Amino acid sequence: MGKVYLVGAGPGDPELITVKGARVLERADVVIYDRLINPKILEFAKNAKELVYLGKWHGQSEKQEEINKMLVEKARRHDVVVRLKGGDPFVFGRGGEECEILRRAGIEYEIVPGITSAIAGPAYAGIPVTHRNYASSLAIVTGHKKEDSALDLQDIFRAVDTVSILMGVSNLEDIVRQALEAGLPPETPIVAIENATRENQRVIKGTLSDFPEKARKENLRPPAVIVVGKVCNLHEKLRWI
Amino acid sequence: MGKVYLVGAGPGDPELITVKGARVLERADVVIYDRLINPKILEFAKNAKELVYLGKWHGQSEKQEEINKMLVEKARRHDVVVRLKGGDPFVFGRGGEECEILRRAGIEYEIVPGITSAIAGPAYAGIPVTHRNYASSLAIVTGHKKEDSALDLQDIFRAVDTVSILMGVSNLEDIVRQALEAGLPPETPIVAIENATRENQRVIKGTLSDFPEKARKENLRPPAVIVVGKVCNLHEKLRWI
Repeated sequence: MGKVYLVGAGPGDPELITVKGARVLERADVVIYDRLINPKILEFAKNAKELVYLGKWHGQSEKQEEINKMLVEKARRHDVVVRLKGGDPFVFGRGGEECEILRRAGIEYEIVPGITSAIAGPAYAGIPVTHRNYASSLAIVTGHKKEDSALDLQDIFRAVDTVSILMGVSNLEDIVRQALEAGLPPETPIVAIENATRENQRVIKGTLSDFPEKARKENLRPPAVIVVGKVCNLHEKLRWI
Repeated sequence: MGKVYLVGAGPGDPELITVKGARVLERADVVIYDRLINPKILEFAKNAKELVYLGKWHGQSEKQEEINKMLVEKARRHDVVVRLKGGDPFVFGRGGEECEILRRAGIEYEIVPGITSAIAGPAYAGIPVTHRNYASSLAIVTGHKKEDSALDLQDIFRAVDTVSILMGVSNLEDIVRQALEAGLPPETPIVAIENATRENQRVIKGTLSDFPEKARKENLRPPAVIVVGKVCNLHEKLRWI
């Protein structure tokens, strides 16, 4: 019986995987990886006999069950199985659910955290998610709706200084509308970091009042991190790429 | 004129630094590092001529000015200066302020994000900060008061499912009181992860109603991450250390 490592690949820059993550990949017999994993990160997996790409299955619940089954099967046949996830396995990565399955099957596992693009994305745009003068709290949320519920971010916009939204591009208008309805001033800055930390990273900045149009004009595409809050105004001053 | 790298050392486990962070440390001429940095991480800095420890200055504003001055001076005399911070440089790390100083002095800089203990701490206790059934939002806050303001977490407790609190041990009673006043049920689980991700990690779990006493009895000591929210109940089920 093998062991499963749930490894966070980080936000995209292949060097933002952890030393531990890279070391575990080097020992991997099998790597089961998601969409949006930078192929350069797979180069760490020199000794893997099998690389399983789950790309097209992303976000489909019926497919999560197949992933769960596959994890258990691979762990029964190999010593080191790596489940490689974008960002961090426990930040909207369904890592918790996969651990529950492994626990139930009596399979040992270990978590190797990863850098989340919710924090590193803004950092690569010169935006500190907290700052002594502008933000003493950060919320990380998904802009992706669950099948059975509406997106409800208004209370979060009211309570937290910086809101970092993953998977929000397709609901951008709804997100901006909720920020305004929560009472944030229309001039509140908002930034989208497309392909955050990758070579093709692109930053689009605006205010709540002009952003949806700007994003349309600039043809903003997923994957992107969307950040709302005063810290976004540091982008021009502190950008370093 | 040299370049300054603001590098996140991660939460404690020395292997949770990024590959990029380790590589930059290997090239460093000078490393200026904070309290709570695992000494094993400094072993990456094989070629450094100087290691400057800032431990005792932690959190004192007058000393931040001296740190700023030192950063500028070192960058003028060395090629590669690493400012090594616990966790992530932009998550309550005053990294933004240091960038502003460097920018003003015309010194080039780069951010190397780090794993924050606000996420990895709970992960090493088997707690996913988000989970499809229990938590669709995460807040990261500091439990450390600014000199001039009271801690105000009530709206955050109301709005966000999982609240991860850094530097909160000394204000634990206030934090719990605010969670209760925000309307969270007294049976809401709360966990403190002391020395998160280190060999001497210790997890203390309770509910809002019994936790302050429990923490006193168990002699909870900083550094610790405090997590409030339903996901804490996964600790017993999913712990893997």
